[in-house]
This record gives sequence, structure tokens and C-alpha cells, in this order.
Amino acid sequence: MPRSGRRREAPHYPDAADIDLLDVLHALADPTRMTIVQTLSVEPERACGTFPVDVAPSTLSHHFKVLREAGLIRHREEANRRLTTLRAADLEERFPGLLGTVVAAYRNGG
Amino acid sequence: MPRSGRRREAPHYPDAADIDLLDVLHALADPTRMTIVQTLSVEPERACGTFPVDVAPSTLSHHFKVLREAGLIRHREEANRRLTTLRAADLEERFPGLLGTVVAAYRNGG
Repeated sequence: MPRSGRRREAPHYPDAADIDLLDVLHALADPTRMTIVQTLSVEPERACGTFPVDVAPSTLSHHFKVLREAGLIRHREEANRRLTTLRAADLEERFPGLLGTVVAAYRNGG
Repeated sequence: MPRSGRRREAPHYPDAADIDLLDVLHALADPTRMTIVQTLSVEPERACGTFPVDVAPSTLSHHFKVLREAGLIRHREEANRRLTTLRAADLEERFPGLLGTVVAAYRNGG
């Protein structure tokens, strides 16, 4: 039984080998999701409520879902917190150089 | 006056400096548009009807518009043909390494 009534289903995480480039590009093509990924590229694990984005919780949940299903992030529970982790190693293995190039492009005024 | 009644407005091309990363990622996050960009990455100028994509002409026009407005391609008229060109130099100047990394990722089974 889920610990929170807000979660309707177990999160789906693609295996590293199944990460799809078009899904990754779609996930990154949004300012809120890009901000989440940028933030994680500096600090690879953060509590979910601490990202510098200004959106409603339900909207943030949607963005996390898109990032999770594209293979960009994982969540894990620790004590009372839900932590978000960037799947940097999986992405680097699947698409060498991609995440770093995109993150640098956005940081340089994308 | 436009030479073809099908064109309702002059195409809009962003200046190289105004190319937006999220627009580029959105434009690339589609199999038809990615195929067009992949094809142009091998052969930088092609006639519009010669891309290896299987979509209706109106759908193809839409995809060209998205690519054009994101700054990925230009069109030019030559004799009776409309040619499509990849803006590889502009993209490289704006986001070094991005296009090459994405194209390589897709070619390697994205």
C-alpha cells in the first residue's frame, strides 16, 4: 500500500539501455524541467520541494513524472523526505556528452 | 505578392543570436523532424520533397515551420525548387557541439 494517497501508481523508470533520445529532448524542452535538471547537474541529489521553480505542486509532480519516465531522474525516499537524483551516469552511458552539452548551452544563455 | 497561394506569410527565421535552446530541443523531439535534421546533417541542402519521411504534405509543412522558427533550417527558392538548408554554422556558433552530439546520439540508436 502506498504511504501517500497522492501517489496512484509506482513510478516507472526506464532501464538505461531503453532511454529514448526523443523522450529526453522532449523532457528538456521546458523551462521548469530544464531548471530542475540544471539544479541537479550542480547538486546531484535534492529534496523535492527545494528546487528553484515557481509552479504549483501538482504541476511540479507532472514535470517530475516526465523527467522520470524519460530516464533523466530517479526518486528515493529517505526518512520523511523524497529525494530526486539525476541519472547522470546512465545518460552518459546511453548518449555520451549529451547532457553536459545541453546543460552548458542552457547555462550560457540558451 | 507571394508566388504561391499556399504560402500565407513570409517565413520567419530567428537571427543566430536569438536561437532559443528550448525551441531547438522541442523541434528535435519528434521523429519526422529529427529525420529531416539527420538527413541534412549528411547532405546540407536538399529539395523539400526528397526527405525520407512518410507524412502528408500539410504535416511536412508544419514540421518545416517548427524547424524554421526554431532556427534549425532555412529555405531558399532555386528555379522551380524549394531547397532546405541546415543552419549548422549558426547553431554551432550559438550552442557549440549541440547539434553534432544530438545527431550522433540519434544515429547510435537514440
